Amino acid sequence: MTLKLYGTRVQRVITVLNEKGVPFELIEVDLMKGEHKAPQFLEKQPFGQVPYIDDDGFILYESRAICRYIATKYADQGTKLIPTDLKGNALFEQAASIESSNFDPSASAAVFENLFKAYWGGKADPVIFEQYIKKLDGKLDAYDVILSKQKYLAGDNVTLADLFHLPYGTIGPGKLPYMFVQEMS
Amino acid sequence: MTLKLYGTRVQRVITVLNEKGVPFELIEVDLMKGEHKAPQFLEKQPFGQVPYIDDDGFILYESRAICRYIATKYADQGTKLIPTDLKGNALFEQAASIESSNFDPSASAAVFENLFKAYWGGKADPVIFEQYIKKLDGKLDAYDVILSKQKYLAGDNVTLADLFHLPYGTIGPGKLPYMFVQEMS
Repeated sequence: MTLKLYGTRVQRVITVLNEKGVPFELIEVDLMKGEHKAPQFLEKQPFGQVPYIDDDGFILYESRAICRYIATKYADQGTKLIPTDLKGNALFEQAASIESSNFDPSASAAVFENLFKAYWGGKADPVIFEQYIKKLDGKLDAYDVILSKQKYLAGDNVTLADLFHLPYGTIGPGKLPYMFVQEMS
Repeated sequence: MTLKLYGTRVQRVITVLNEKGVPFELIEVDLMKGEHKAPQFLEKQPFGQVPYIDDDGFILYESRAICRYIATKYADQGTKLIPTDLKGNALFEQAASIESSNFDPSASAAVFENLFKAYWGGKADPVIFEQYIKKLDGKLDAYDVILSKQKYLAGDNVTLADLFHLPYGTIGPGKLPYMFVQEMS
């Protein structure tokens, strides 16, 4: 059965599915209508968040976990995205953790403040936005150090850790090293 | 050579080292003196954060990545902490991602506001603290749903995903499911 992907703006997962050549069916979840907080959705995803997948009855959520599952299940096709040797894997995990601890918090907060807050009836506060950008900029100084010594965040080959940055990567001014898409997942 | 652990309040890593019976030498890093921002520290850890390890010359940082490395390197001794079958591993990764995306942000912010802000010359704001606690409480409702069906966050066996909660777990009022230590890493 074709893998079903439930969500909206699921750039992170779709990129990995495409990279691995895995066919899938996207089932849009309308956040504005609160479909992610409906009982039948919460039964699959108790936090009421997108995305989740249904892979022939196997339900899995958290976009990074879904990406890892796809990369592992289809390890032998497409680009290898998770190193499996002890030290290579450790450096991949270091890079993955850098993304979730040092990139995502300020990047997602800045994007929310400046872009998505308005969708939910709020108003962007440029002072708060600048605070998050300044914090992100400090983190990107360390990215510059790392990427001056190697091509990608986990070494000289691309890994899932790089792709994890996609949702908040953008063509922006300054030091943003990941310039891909403007959607969030 | 004995594994060297550089840091302070490194509960997450020490727990895993002890669980696996791995001897180590702890080298305290004095954050109040800014030792984590000194050039010789930044050479090992470009973000200026604790902890990092030196395992016979192999430098690794990010506490969760260090825990994964130790759990993998010493997979055959002590408690098995990372499931290796495809679906079991996927559910572990889902749980690990829940911790970093749905628990840590509000838990760490609440602990910082109420406990560590004062160390850095700030003053705790009870209104901000309550906002983070309220947000955390909403996340813990979903934890309740998950933990009503299984013993641990990734299934019926303890995994690293549970241990990742340790730094901010505490004996507190209400629904906090992880009641272990009061230190942060």
